[in-house]
Amino acid sequence: MSVAQAVVADGTSRRERGGRSARREQRSHGPQGLGRPYITRNIPSYDILSEENLLRIEAAADRILAEIGIEFRDDPVALDHWKRAGANVDGELVKFEPGMLREILKTAPAEFTQHARNRERSVRIGGKNVVFSPAYGSPFVMDLDKGRRYGTIEDFRNFVKLAQSSPWLHHSGGTICEPVDVPVNKRHLDMIYAHIRYSDRAFMGSVTSESRAEDSIDMARILFGRDFVEENCVILGNVNVNSPLVWDATMTTALRAYARANQAAVVVPFILGGAMGPVTNAGAIAQSLAETMAGCALTQLERPGAPVIFGNFLSSMSLRSGSPTFGTPEPAIGSMVVGQLARRLNLPLRCSGNFTTSKLPDAHAMNEGTMSMLAAVHCGANFILHAAGFLDGLLSMSYEKFVMDADFCGALHTYLDGVQIDDNQLALDAFQEVGPGNHFFGCAHTMANYQTAFWDSEIADNEPFEKWEAAGGEDAARRANRKWKKALLEYEAPPLDMGIDEELQDFIARKKASMEDAWY
Amino acid sequence: MSVAQAVVADGTSRRERGGRSARREQRSHGPQGLGRPYITRNIPSYDILSEENLLRIEAAADRILAEIGIEFRDDPVALDHWKRAGANVDGELVKFEPGMLREILKTAPAEFTQHARNRERSVRIGGKNVVFSPAYGSPFVMDLDKGRRYGTIEDFRNFVKLAQSSPWLHHSGGTICEPVDVPVNKRHLDMIYAHIRYSDRAFMGSVTSESRAEDSIDMARILFGRDFVEENCVILGNVNVNSPLVWDATMTTALRAYARANQAAVVVPFILGGAMGPVTNAGAIAQSLAETMAGCALTQLERPGAPVIFGNFLSSMSLRSGSPTFGTPEPAIGSMVVGQLARRLNLPLRCSGNFTTSKLPDAHAMNEGTMSMLAAVHCGANFILHAAGFLDGLLSMSYEKFVMDADFCGALHTYLDGVQIDDNQLALDAFQEVGPGNHFFGCAHTMANYQTAFWDSEIADNEPFEKWEAAGGEDAARRANRKWKKALLEYEAPPLDMGIDEELQDFIARKKASMEDAWY
Repeated sequence: MSVAQAVVADGTSRRERGGRSARREQRSHGPQGLGRPYITRNIPSYDILSEENLLRIEAAADRILAEIGIEFRDDPVALDHWKRAGANVDGELVKFEPGMLREILKTAPAEFTQHARNRERSVRIGGKNVVFSPAYGSPFVMDLDKGRRYGTIEDFRNFVKLAQSSPWLHHSGGTICEPVDVPVNKRHLDMIYAHIRYSDRAFMGSVTSESRAEDSIDMARILFGRDFVEENCVILGNVNVNSPLVWDATMTTALRAYARANQAAVVVPFILGGAMGPVTNAGAIAQSLAETMAGCALTQLERPGAPVIFGNFLSSMSLRSGSPTFGTPEPAIGSMVVGQLARRLNLPLRCSGNFTTSKLPDAHAMNEGTMSMLAAVHCGANFILHAAGFLDGLLSMSYEKFVMDADFCGALHTYLDGVQIDDNQLALDAFQEVGPGNHFFGCAHTMANYQTAFWDSEIADNEPFEKWEAAGGEDAARRANRKWKKALLEYEAPPLDMGIDEELQDFIARKKASMEDAWY
Repeated sequence: MSVAQAVVADGTSRRERGGRSARREQRSHGPQGLGRPYITRNIPSYDILSEENLLRIEAAADRILAEIGIEFRDDPVALDHWKRAGANVDGELVKFEPGMLREILKTAPAEFTQHARNRERSVRIGGKNVVFSPAYGSPFVMDLDKGRRYGTIEDFRNFVKLAQSSPWLHHSGGTICEPVDVPVNKRHLDMIYAHIRYSDRAFMGSVTSESRAEDSIDMARILFGRDFVEENCVILGNVNVNSPLVWDATMTTALRAYARANQAAVVVPFILGGAMGPVTNAGAIAQSLAETMAGCALTQLERPGAPVIFGNFLSSMSLRSGSPTFGTPEPAIGSMVVGQLARRLNLPLRCSGNFTTSKLPDAHAMNEGTMSMLAAVHCGANFILHAAGFLDGLLSMSYEKFVMDADFCGALHTYLDGVQIDDNQLALDAFQEVGPGNHFFGCAHTMANYQTAFWDSEIADNEPFEKWEAAGGEDAARRANRKWKKALLEYEAPPLDMGIDEELQDFIARKKASMEDAWY
């Protein structure tokens, strides 16, 4: 007797119960709580380094900070902050006594809530919580039908809608792709509006200049109310170190704008070992720790207590071609170490994502992506940017990979739930009922548990070969192609208060009218 | 300056040094020691359950063994063993007092060497060691050119050759595919001969009957010498429980044949949750523990001190179609728990592999395979069967997936090396040399370390999009297709003593002449 038959024998059919969508519904609200606003992990982080070796990395970072220092370019306010904090400032080069940054970082919260306009979708960042957010920053988009081309605002909106449609992502992300059909100096307005209009989840703002960061925050103020924003995190800004050991004013002024408004900067060195950092993993990790501590500490000098996320982006490079590589084993291992280091600083962590250099949503893409994404969840990352869509070494956002990755994020919900150990899960009554040599298909324990038993992928095809072949013998990319088109067709925008919508549109129109289009 | 230019500036070009093959050569013998006979892991296992919860699973297994029991069918010798050991034997149903099997298992070695005919390729199984072995048991084979068809002895030999050609596999495996063009009762002879003739690595024998197990061991005696085999492990036999809670005579007589000859049985329950075990993970794990302990203990009753491997094969099923699913999150998590349980028994572990239900070497295949394979290495598995080639829910051995998986096994060498922490790896001199804002391409530290710095995949394409597109825009499966053909073309058989070869062929001819062909 198959499960389906067993269910019929049980008096109701799967169809009567609504089949897959009812099951998903039940999962969303059931005891396992799949389809949650974010994940609270039930498995520990994977700690691969000993205390002794962590101390050696921290000592190396301290020496980099004390002996080599970090340049803060073209931002006199940042330099003033450092002088007042007691750093050794020589021109734009800042050196830090060991322990100084750790002391400053004590005011940063270990955990905070980023509010969504749908308050049921607010996310908790830090601690045992895990938030999946789409990939960020690709100039190109691609799909199986039209291949690779520059991203447009229509693509951008499509990806916001696809993320909103997925029960397995928790965040709307930021610059999901660059909308190159909108002037560079006005893009941020249309991107923020798309996040607000087409998603009811939390999102990220612009960091490409201080004024664009402030526009982003102002739009969040319209959405959430000025007083609420003053007290609560409602927007993130992802700022990058110009590795090695340089912070540019574009980034520090944006970082300070977010901190000043009590919003969270995500502080991220981007280190390709052998290029922007040493070719050896331990050195790249030490550098990353030094750079991130400095950036995070600057947020606390701007506004003590402002939320901040300890970020990280390690990767390797092909030493034959000089091309960056992604999803390789060294950064996966590096992520695990970075996770340990971030926890010792008691800061929320952003780490890794679904990285790959593949130019297609193929075996190469998912091999690298899966290793990289598992490193993110194993290392204890709290905010996982690049969780869906990453292809082509971050140069392209892929429609098919997006839905594959989102599906994998679903599997990771089950994975991070670990194993429940209780009498029902241990199932001794089932063994008593079934006994040696018999099957468990229709037994009472199976009937009571099957609906929430196993992760049920929408991308995997686990039908027998003959059935799969008769249905067209499609590969996963082709299935994903149908899936994103269906999701866009079925998409419905979440309701948005008309007054707020008008105020946002007025703000955007005023801002756009106030400046000439700039295209670079 | 690119690395290539930097190297030229350094006085020698990559080409002069022999490029990739020289680098691989150096890796094989260099300090990182990639391309080793097996891996000794430098990262800990990933222990996800608390002591308290492990005790609850062990208590559940003890209750299954004591209250429900295990049937040992049609093997009076096994029943006699159990009676003498003090088990409660009622007909063919055997019940075990808590603690009894653990006590018997104390004579089993925690770690042992399986010898290869090339002694430099002998593998150490147990402890911190990891051995990758090809997939096992598919009736079909497939490749991109000819699609799916039944496996033949030619396919079998091809896969032995492909495994032998890969620096990233450590073992020749067993029934890599079923050679259906050879009679069922004679296949084992041709398979063992292929392993011996076309590989110089360790291998596995037949388990489909006691006499075939003994034939396999006899062929190993010809190869290694009778006295050597009496004292050393040279062949493994993979025996399956007929889950739930039944051991059939085919398996127990084969298991006892291996143990009697001081060779290692791999004891493996095959549990699809909801079918051969409970639909809940904790119960399936407890059952698996009970079944494996009983099988492993039986080897010790047959011959105390015989090597044995604690095996495991958990999977889930689609509760819509009743199809088995592979590479899903529940068994991945289950593997981590099983690893903890096996270490508490102080037994070498076989767990997981590169599992998937995909019918193509596509994104689906490598997403599931990568999660499953990482679970195997994270859980501390010592012998990882199904490390390469698994497709179609174990029904098909794929040529393309085989080389993709073998390449991923290479990445896992680097992964399992973890992070080295020493002064050179921490690279403080490089920071002193390079300073803020400069690149590390040509610095002394990069020049000294780049050759062993990063994992260098032969399947991934990390060229820029335009270069990849101009070269044909191939996906990973197409690249893998070229790679396996090239590997077979370039394959050279390792030398084999002519006397031994003749003796083996005589043995096979005698055995084949002694029985009629049987085709089922």
